[in-house]
Amino acid sequence: MSSSEIEKLISEISKLPGLGRKSSQRIALYLLKNKERNLLPLMQAMKETNHKIVNCDICGNIDVVTPCSICKNTKRDNQMICVIEDMSDLWTFERIGFYRGMYHVLGGTLSAINGIGVDELSINKLTNRIEEQNVKEVILALSTTMEGQTTSHVIADKLESLKIEVTRLAQGIPIGGEVHYLDENTLSTAFKSRKKII
Amino acid sequence: MSSSEIEKLISEISKLPGLGRKSSQRIALYLLKNKERNLLPLMQAMKETNHKIVNCDICGNIDVVTPCSICKNTKRDNQMICVIEDMSDLWTFERIGFYRGMYHVLGGTLSAINGIGVDELSINKLTNRIEEQNVKEVILALSTTMEGQTTSHVIADKLESLKIEVTRLAQGIPIGGEVHYLDENTLSTAFKSRKKII
Repeated sequence: MSSSEIEKLISEISKLPGLGRKSSQRIALYLLKNKERNLLPLMQAMKETNHKIVNCDICGNIDVVTPCSICKNTKRDNQMICVIEDMSDLWTFERIGFYRGMYHVLGGTLSAINGIGVDELSINKLTNRIEEQNVKEVILALSTTMEGQTTSHVIADKLESLKIEVTRLAQGIPIGGEVHYLDENTLSTAFKSRKKII
Repeated sequence: MSSSEIEKLISEISKLPGLGRKSSQRIALYLLKNKERNLLPLMQAMKETNHKIVNCDICGNIDVVTPCSICKNTKRDNQMICVIEDMSDLWTFERIGFYRGMYHVLGGTLSAINGIGVDELSINKLTNRIEEQNVKEVILALSTTMEGQTTSHVIADKLESLKIEVTRLAQGIPIGGEVHYLDENTLSTAFKSRKKII
């Protein structure tokens, strides 16, 4: 149907998250239809990030320098560390922009099924950081999935002896959420954590 | 929020068809999280197609050789040319596999709004081919959109003097289609083109 080079490109594209065979074919065609305008700038951008991007030795962020621009920013509060699963969580926090502390990218959550144990995540690095950096508060901003909550528990256990404040994000009804659409777990959590207003 | 190199990569990815900001961010992260396994093979595949892929001088197909493997295939009927808008149509025909003639990739449809006139499409090339190749039938397999139908008309006009058979795809109810879901145009077309069965 198409040459093996095109097949190879389509198959590489279809490994990207969220792309199936059809959309990969469409993207491959788009790239090849006008190589100068479509393919080359993308290749160039990939080449540059490939050469320049490194993982921050301190927090695990990806940047062109290590320590990364967040870790190096002296205007940020380095006594607060927000522990997140993934880079995309860091980008979400930064996009919204209210948080001015540091981050710690775990690299995932504990998962027996996927063979991810304590050593696969940067948990020991976190405890070292806390000791070295004179950290006052660690915010566990992990998902409220089973894996996320287990990971939060394990980290909280490890931090218990360190005499610092450990917090987690509030759980309840999302803003804009309608009560009759809520799942059982969210509603019962929100009910149990109800707050007095008068 | 992220370094300018990552921003550049995300922006290049988001130019790809069907990808928005969010999915591009997700893809960029996927590529950068494990450069060896995710980014490099894709870059390699792009580099290879970039070097090897050419447009067929005859039909406009993309392949590693010109004339392409379809035009060179002597087992195919070169007295039939199927005129298509785009490479993706060629791939659809070839995937289904019933057609054994040649193709002619127009490169789009006539569109006043997008400034695509007769000279932007490979229509003159088609008439040259027909004369040189002793073609017996030209099948216009264009979309049944306004632009596609206009383009079919214009091409049919140009081919009128050449004394060859010019056909277009049948129009009617798609197979598996339910009558009560049909739009007005399809239903009235199907009705007007009804066929006697007894």
